[in-house]
Amino acid sequence: MAERIGFIGLGIMGRPMARNLIKAGHELVVHSRSQGPVDDLVAEAKGAAIAAGSPREVAAQTTTIITMLPDSPDVRAVVFGANGLLEEVGEGHLLVDMSTIAPATAIEVADALAAKGASALDAPVSGGDKGAIAGTLSIMVGGAEADVERARPLFEAMGTTIVHVGGPGAGQVVKACNQIVVAVAYAGLSEALVLGTKAGVEPEKILQVLGGGLANSRVLEMRGPTMIKHEFTPGFRIKLHRKDLNIALNAGREEGVPLAVTALVSQLFETAHATGRGELDHSALLAVIEDAAGVGRRTE
Amino acid sequence: MAERIGFIGLGIMGRPMARNLIKAGHELVVHSRSQGPVDDLVAEAKGAAIAAGSPREVAAQTTTIITMLPDSPDVRAVVFGANGLLEEVGEGHLLVDMSTIAPATAIEVADALAAKGASALDAPVSGGDKGAIAGTLSIMVGGAEADVERARPLFEAMGTTIVHVGGPGAGQVVKACNQIVVAVAYAGLSEALVLGTKAGVEPEKILQVLGGGLANSRVLEMRGPTMIKHEFTPGFRIKLHRKDLNIALNAGREEGVPLAVTALVSQLFETAHATGRGELDHSALLAVIEDAAGVGRRTE
Repeated sequence: MAERIGFIGLGIMGRPMARNLIKAGHELVVHSRSQGPVDDLVAEAKGAAIAAGSPREVAAQTTTIITMLPDSPDVRAVVFGANGLLEEVGEGHLLVDMSTIAPATAIEVADALAAKGASALDAPVSGGDKGAIAGTLSIMVGGAEADVERARPLFEAMGTTIVHVGGPGAGQVVKACNQIVVAVAYAGLSEALVLGTKAGVEPEKILQVLGGGLANSRVLEMRGPTMIKHEFTPGFRIKLHRKDLNIALNAGREEGVPLAVTALVSQLFETAHATGRGELDHSALLAVIEDAAGVGRRTE
Repeated sequence: MAERIGFIGLGIMGRPMARNLIKAGHELVVHSRSQGPVDDLVAEAKGAAIAAGSPREVAAQTTTIITMLPDSPDVRAVVFGANGLLEEVGEGHLLVDMSTIAPATAIEVADALAAKGASALDAPVSGGDKGAIAGTLSIMVGGAEADVERARPLFEAMGTTIVHVGGPGAGQVVKACNQIVVAVAYAGLSEALVLGTKAGVEPEKILQVLGGGLANSRVLEMRGPTMIKHEFTPGFRIKLHRKDLNIALNAGREEGVPLAVTALVSQLFETAHATGRGELDHSALLAVIEDAAGVGRRTE
């Protein structure tokens, strides 16, 4: 019989991940800040999922607990807060935090659980809601080898690329690296598209030529065609990528790595957020570059 | 019988491009600043290539002339200089400049040739020396449709992706866009690799995870594995990409497009050049980020 698993955080990512665990034969004990998604999942799971009133209650009924939360403070609240995991966990408990948070917070959580005789993995993902629904997430895991093997069947229900990248916090470090590369790619492509189109070239032709050479990227392939049509439905929201770049910059400070380009690009994400684009897809960075170039602006 | 074609500029790119034209059955009239490559090509071509003493002499013996030169001043010298093309060209002549130069210079050249009744295409390439040797270059062409069709058989002997992107100068604009995207991609990947490795993650694992998701790119696939081994044999030299970013920034100024990220990355290329890395592959941008993070530096 498959193990009963705790699952905390039924947001855009968490919901489909929980569904894939149920599909793989696991029973879930679920909790989320909003009750609606909990009730929905319990109803559709037909007995394979039950609700718990707090993280502490989840830990009382399971030994392996997955969390999928928006940000570091949310994870800290679930672990350290009132009725949090730390009030219940002990020997044999494993926390698998799949949120994208600061590496320093991941290490703090792992240390706190270790002090109770429990253990933790940081296992952030990439692949977005589409990857979560399809069960094709990339999962980058930090923690002890034995814990990674224990969690592997769960990871395999949610993702296809599962890489154990190092000790506690290492998963979050690699996720920060991932978010740097993606954000910077959007910035480069956006500047190129605005320059080319303002100079009179059809953006489709820019994508065609660039896609045929060293300038090609997953970002260009997946989002280039929607960017030039100004289709910015998320996908992955500006406000989350903004948060992730802040994590990356903090990690840079802690590791002694100046990140000049990431810092500049993070400020462009600040502009995107400050100009009301926080809920748009991160490819809406294009609009910030267009604004700066006066594209679409009336000059009378 | 295939047409006799002028070819000026037998550098790292020009030599294999000229060879591919000969292979396709064309006879060439060649000229280059250094006599050595001219003599070599004439010798190996066994009658299919003859030497000319100046651009003017090339134009006296051919009607279609290809140029493949390092920079805008070189193209200006070949066109406007003493014994230059402009002293000879007239009705029926077509100049196909495949160098990467400023869009403004490309337009100046096209205008000057038009005033003599001749015509010009700007047709810069991407794909590097490997693409030039294999005949798989991407060629982005600016100019009149009829001239593009006239040159197409020549392009097809040298490249596989041939896109007519607009009027005079448009090829150079798209090349500038291409060079922005590639340079910015190297910057993002370099910052990510230095952050991740200084935090203790094996760089191979960073590449593995990032390559499996939205962070993947041709740059990561082609150069990531050599970057983490510090193999910086060109490939495409820092000094040339530095020049190309300057072209892009000038184009931005002319078109009214602020390019903040490109500007910052161009300064990292300045650092690469100023620290003696001008002859290395552009992926050596990694070393600039490592320097800034004190990686490999003794701290006593």
